[in-house]
Amino acid sequence: MPSPMPYQPGRHFLQIPGPTNVPDRILRAIDNPTIDHRSAEFAQLGAACLAGMKTVFKTGGDVVIYPASGTGAWEAALVNTLSPGDRVLVFESGHFASLWSKMANSLTLTVDTIPGDWRRGADADALRAKLDADRQHEIKAVMVVHNETSTGVKSDIAAVRRAIDAAGHPALLLVDTISSLASMDYRHDEWGVDVTVAGSQKGLMLPPGLSFNAISAKALAASKHSRLPKSYWRWEEMLEAGRKGFFPYTPATNLLFGLREALKMLIEEEGLENVFRRHDRNAEATRRAVCAWGLEVFAQHPDEFSSSLTAVLMPAGFNEAELREVILRNFNMSLGAGLSKLAGKVFRIGHLGNFNDLMLAGTLCGVEMGLELAGVPHRKGGVTEALAYLSQPAVSQVASKEGGVHAAV
Amino acid sequence: MPSPMPYQPGRHFLQIPGPTNVPDRILRAIDNPTIDHRSAEFAQLGAACLAGMKTVFKTGGDVVIYPASGTGAWEAALVNTLSPGDRVLVFESGHFASLWSKMANSLTLTVDTIPGDWRRGADADALRAKLDADRQHEIKAVMVVHNETSTGVKSDIAAVRRAIDAAGHPALLLVDTISSLASMDYRHDEWGVDVTVAGSQKGLMLPPGLSFNAISAKALAASKHSRLPKSYWRWEEMLEAGRKGFFPYTPATNLLFGLREALKMLIEEEGLENVFRRHDRNAEATRRAVCAWGLEVFAQHPDEFSSSLTAVLMPAGFNEAELREVILRNFNMSLGAGLSKLAGKVFRIGHLGNFNDLMLAGTLCGVEMGLELAGVPHRKGGVTEALAYLSQPAVSQVASKEGGVHAAV
Amino acid sequence: MPSPMPYQPGRHFLQIPGPTNVPDRILRAIDNPTIDHRSAEFAQLGAACLAGMKTVFKTGGDVVIYPASGTGAWEAALVNTLSPGDRVLVFESGHFASLWSKMANSLTLTVDTIPGDWRRGADADALRAKLDADRQHEIKAVMVVHNETSTGVKSDIAAVRRAIDAAGHPALLLVDTISSLASMDYRHDEWGVDVTVAGSQKGLMLPPGLSFNAISAKALAASKHSRLPKSYWRWEEMLEAGRKGFFPYTPATNLLFGLREALKMLIEEEGLENVFRRHDRNAEATRRAVCAWGLEVFAQHPDEFSSSLTAVLMPAGFNEAELREVILRNFNMSLGAGLSKLAGKVFRIGHLGNFNDLMLAGTLCGVEMGLELAGVPHRKGGVTEALAYLSQPAVSQVASKEGGVHAAV
Amino acid sequence: MPSPMPYQPGRHFLQIPGPTNVPDRILRAIDNPTIDHRSAEFAQLGAACLAGMKTVFKTGGDVVIYPASGTGAWEAALVNTLSPGDRVLVFESGHFASLWSKMANSLTLTVDTIPGDWRRGADADALRAKLDADRQHEIKAVMVVHNETSTGVKSDIAAVRRAIDAAGHPALLLVDTISSLASMDYRHDEWGVDVTVAGSQKGLMLPPGLSFNAISAKALAASKHSRLPKSYWRWEEMLEAGRKGFFPYTPATNLLFGLREALKMLIEEEGLENVFRRHDRNAEATRRAVCAWGLEVFAQHPDEFSSSLTAVLMPAGFNEAELREVILRNFNMSLGAGLSKLAGKVFRIGHLGNFNDLMLAGTLCGVEMGLELAGVPHRKGGVTEALAYLSQPAVSQVASKEGGVHAAV
Repeated sequence: MPSPMPYQPGRHFLQIPGPTNVPDRILRAIDNPTIDHRSAEFAQLGAACLAGMKTVFKTGGDVVIYPASGTGAWEAALVNTLSPGDRVLVFESGHFASLWSKMANSLTLTVDTIPGDWRRGADADALRAKLDADRQHEIKAVMVVHNETSTGVKSDIAAVRRAIDAAGHPALLLVDTISSLASMDYRHDEWGVDVTVAGSQKGLMLPPGLSFNAISAKALAASKHSRLPKSYWRWEEMLEAGRKGFFPYTPATNLLFGLREALKMLIEEEGLENVFRRHDRNAEATRRAVCAWGLEVFAQHPDEFSSSLTAVLMPAGFNEAELREVILRNFNMSLGAGLSKLAGKVFRIGHLGNFNDLMLAGTLCGVEMGLELAGVPHRKGGVTEALAYLSQPAVSQVASKEGGVHAAV
Repeated sequence: MPSPMPYQPGRHFLQIPGPTNVPDRILRAIDNPTIDHRSAEFAQLGAACLAGMKTVFKTGGDVVIYPASGTGAWEAALVNTLSPGDRVLVFESGHFASLWSKMANSLTLTVDTIPGDWRRGADADALRAKLDADRQHEIKAVMVVHNETSTGVKSDIAAVRRAIDAAGHPALLLVDTISSLASMDYRHDEWGVDVTVAGSQKGLMLPPGLSFNAISAKALAASKHSRLPKSYWRWEEMLEAGRKGFFPYTPATNLLFGLREALKMLIEEEGLENVFRRHDRNAEATRRAVCAWGLEVFAQHPDEFSSSLTAVLMPAGFNEAELREVILRNFNMSLGAGLSKLAGKVFRIGHLGNFNDLMLAGTLCGVEMGLELAGVPHRKGGVTEALAYLSQPAVSQVASKEGGVHAAV
Repeated sequence: MPSPMPYQPGRHFLQIPGPTNVPDRILRAIDNPTIDHRSAEFAQLGAACLAGMKTVFKTGGDVVIYPASGTGAWEAALVNTLSPGDRVLVFESGHFASLWSKMANSLTLTVDTIPGDWRRGADADALRAKLDADRQHEIKAVMVVHNETSTGVKSDIAAVRRAIDAAGHPALLLVDTISSLASMDYRHDEWGVDVTVAGSQKGLMLPPGLSFNAISAKALAASKHSRLPKSYWRWEEMLEAGRKGFFPYTPATNLLFGLREALKMLIEEEGLENVFRRHDRNAEATRRAVCAWGLEVFAQHPDEFSSSLTAVLMPAGFNEAELREVILRNFNMSLGAGLSKLAGKVFRIGHLGNFNDLMLAGTLCGVEMGLELAGVPHRKGGVTEALAYLSQPAVSQVASKEGGVHAAV
Repeated sequence: MPSPMPYQPGRHFLQIPGPTNVPDRILRAIDNPTIDHRSAEFAQLGAACLAGMKTVFKTGGDVVIYPASGTGAWEAALVNTLSPGDRVLVFESGHFASLWSKMANSLTLTVDTIPGDWRRGADADALRAKLDADRQHEIKAVMVVHNETSTGVKSDIAAVRRAIDAAGHPALLLVDTISSLASMDYRHDEWGVDVTVAGSQKGLMLPPGLSFNAISAKALAASKHSRLPKSYWRWEEMLEAGRKGFFPYTPATNLLFGLREALKMLIEEEGLENVFRRHDRNAEATRRAVCAWGLEVFAQHPDEFSSSLTAVLMPAGFNEAELREVILRNFNMSLGAGLSKLAGKVFRIGHLGNFNDLMLAGTLCGVEMGLELAGVPHRKGGVTEALAYLSQPAVSQVASKEGGVHAAV
């Protein structure tokens, strides 16, 4: 098989919105001999990972860790709480919300969709109306993506919770935080989430291969009556074994070595609130660059701008795939593609995980040069704008909450 | 949390029957920056892994790779081929056969069991009788564990196939090779297996976190009509994406780096047939040691001795857990515990994966010294017997096919 | 001991002019079990390293590899060729030339210096005059630094050779290529160099700990009569053992693992000429940024601009140490300090080794933001200029050979 | 170049007496990005390494660390303390003593030798006589190898010191601990050593590439007047820079990462006294095996048995090179060759560094099987004897202080 790409010197800029740049410390932690998963040494590892993940989810409740991609944790959230034919309500906020919805359908659930144009987050008013109309409480769960990886649009989970409460509706609230957890503020308990879904390969700075559920008491109670067939994803055995730091089947031990290191970095060394501020800051700088280029941030409302990625609309007549290819070939950087209906139209800049100002600066320079080389119409000066923002003393940084051409005009 | 074990110098002997000792080359391959899973570079990786796995399964058919433990591939084999309430037939050959059976039950299948005392492999005659009796062809699948990790008993898969064919029965043949693949000869196509289940952390010499299905055309056809709910495990999208070396959701990229390296070592460098011969040789040496100690190999029939692990019966009145603890504390070696009904009664020596004569010699010395220190009645000389066998010129090694006290007397 | 720096997320930008950013592949090659340095396997390693280094030096002659810093290879060049009291001639081209000169003095040699202001390279005319005046041929060696790491000034080695030849003088030509080899074109044989000195931690992309001599036949002949005491550095045993790929004492085996990988990348994968072009390009972009900032490149003559680093003069009244501290604290980047008489006055940007356009872009952004935050007077737009240069199609890049404020005006 | 050895599965047993088996933790520490050697972060690293090495040397005095093999630290000990023509006294205790002596000669020193047959350590009485006879105090230094790597014979350094003191002689005491430090008890201050020489690749469990001098006040004073030419090895700049954790030239940063980890393991985790006891125990077990085989330990006196390696005499007419080749090819283990006059006659078993009982057991099994396969006359039962010793409760282990055929008869 021929090499698809000539040798490229220097470090690859992996600026897709996940998997993210895994820190050397974490790769090295993973690169240790696998240990006996029934040993006392393992129990310490398992316990440390579970405890740390509770801190990250901001929950005092239960957490389970799957040897699986984030997609598996999606499935776990559904099969543990629901029964065949159950009705679920999904906000059509983007590609991943659609995929989760499709999964629910595959798992024999009945899916109600609150439609959207992908540029806005979950509409709590529409939800309220839906729930009010559901007098029989046929809707068993509301499924929301906290941060749409395909669009860079964030949803207000607390508002969703308030809408459910205001409706006095008993539906469970299931939230996907795959591209937000450990990058953007998230509060499982405070926001009243029943099941939170997460993965390892984004804000947690790990390779893919681990995924997570945080579980409320209400979700746990629901799992006792859930009738969807399940075994691998079943919480019961996971929780029981987890109490001692173990797993009911062979866990992905080496990725857990990495998770322990990541939790140490996020919680003890940088501090979660600092992590969030860093992501906010880099996201704001990115939007300022986009705006200065005269391009449009795909997300439409400042309150919903993602801090982990920014999706950028291509000018009409220009294809993002070509731009990304030019950037990959010339500047050794991967950007995120437009997905499904956004294919060709939107490219995505990941600015999450183990990241900092100069990595972002290099990233934005790569985009600016790529726009030039690919002949995509743009104004110069995006990088300059970003640098101006990043070189302000950090304390004075109140995010402008503006982005895209609207702000620029 | 207190350290559960004082500092132990030197290399830990991880002689559980999996996870196994991961070679440095493979750990280092895993310890590389995660790449874009939608890139051309990734497509090469994915294609190389899938092609190599076909060679290992000895199949020209389809293979899928899951970011999951082996347990997940068990589930995949069931949910892709069967429908709610379908009847399946399981040989109760050991702990893992029981777990797989329990999983089938959890997934709403109806489980028929061919009972066993765990010391013998699958009984093809009993199967034939069962299938002959099933005039309505209600049995949709026969589930067999090729090599029982809990007992060290191997089943004759070709004989199972012949029994099904002789009965003219259309049931699918599903086989677990988690602790045999890439350690013991296995032939998916030649033996007429419909779904083979495997995991990364044994003969493939990887950390846990990947699992596999090899799929016959018949199994693939069955999957079109299967009605068990499924999404994560669904073959269809995996096969479609896999044709180009991709995955339908984020794969465990770094473990795939390791898999590519493992396949290179197994197929190109050592050669699968040499791998099998090495395991046969080390297993025979182990049994000779056990026999010389006056202990009994748990597996009863020489044709069914596992080449990847040996389970050893403790003398009456002595608990394997104590022995293993003595060995762990004094000699920095982990052995496999007795599982479920064998708890306390059997310990297991893993001699599979990235292993050689001196690693085995150290392992057997650890057992012999442990027996002494733990006060377990035994005869001396097990190591001496093993060395005598291992120091014969390799060419003359025709395995004795005897083991345990019966052979010794 | 307190941590001197708070936790800094993301990748550190190590932009000192060496040690450079070691590629992951090389770190992972080093991270392998040490092997027997008297084994056949080692002999292959040693032979591959020696052969590859000859290609890098562009020599058909002898090469030796020391387990030592570059400073050790300086000493080796002297003690193998000279005798107590011998007169040597050194161009005072910068801090490292001065250190090498000081070393010669410590080793009991008599040092003649051709003075310089550090902003220009070796003056071949001055050399010619010196050699012409040395009727007795008392000068035994001419010592030149090819690329001054303290100043970013390159010397024309071919011109130095021509001057020696024109003078008909028998002095040996000893050249330090520590910060140029494998970054900038260098030709040991063609340029008639007698001993070339190099180290591992710059263009060779390795950690420090290996150093090298390339040796002409004339130098080898001189070594037979050299009377400086020597043992560790003695070529004779090194060359004899090296013929079989071995070393006369324990070599730094793991760094040799890394060297083999580095040579594969430089020679087989990227190609040396491409490596040089890449460095030229990144250096030119750097100078354009400096120029746009209104700062001055320390090197005065375009023909002498280094392609591996750029030293930049601070505006009067501003201290480079403060600027570097601001950049380190705020942007997680290390730059090179001003050394000895340039302390406080010059900072150095390393753009060598495993490097590419976006790493450079991030680097220049860090400098531009640092200038702003540290209150150093400058014009904006350095990054913009660099990007403009880097986003031209590579084929049209004829280096402007201009830099600094002179060019800018 | 053809591969010299077919693929060998499993872990290589590197049982030469150094380089030793580097622990994964240390390799992984080395496998981290190189940092700026002039940074505050580096200063912490340097300071930690220097402080830890003082603990290992058991000195309150100065220590320097060279980016060099142990051979370099030999040279440093001589060139820092002596002047051209100075007389030194060397015990001819083995191959490495001879090499050090040869080095002294190369460095223009005058070497007096106290001859020996290599089977005994330094003879304090002979030394006393030599010193008494040296009325003019022409002897400036006494050079002793603490533990001869070529023979497995240990010398009594305290006795050597007493002899010097008894003679009232001012000679410096220079001691090579390359294969003993951090494996066998050693006390720089208490034993009155002036310069101790050590290397990284033995008891310190690192790859080769670092070496050390521990320096007494007397040695330091001597260095002020020493006239041997020196620069790379000069203590003065090393000590001055070292006071702040720095180095006068680029240090081998990544190996220092490893050293810091090794010191943590040796001092904080296992404890030096436990390290010594472990080596004593494994050495005793080895000698018991040798004795049971009917072979002879090369070291003649029990008080002088090395705890880090055991040299074994081949029966007359049998060549150790052939035995080692058989063992390497069949059992993937490297043993130490016979050196210089012992070539063909002695093989050496390294049992030092990151080692434990089962690694030793595997090693001895490899030797026993190798003797069988190579047709070397021996009695069976060496491994059995070793296991009997190792399976005694550790507390009762009073080393027998006997070895070889004399003890066996």
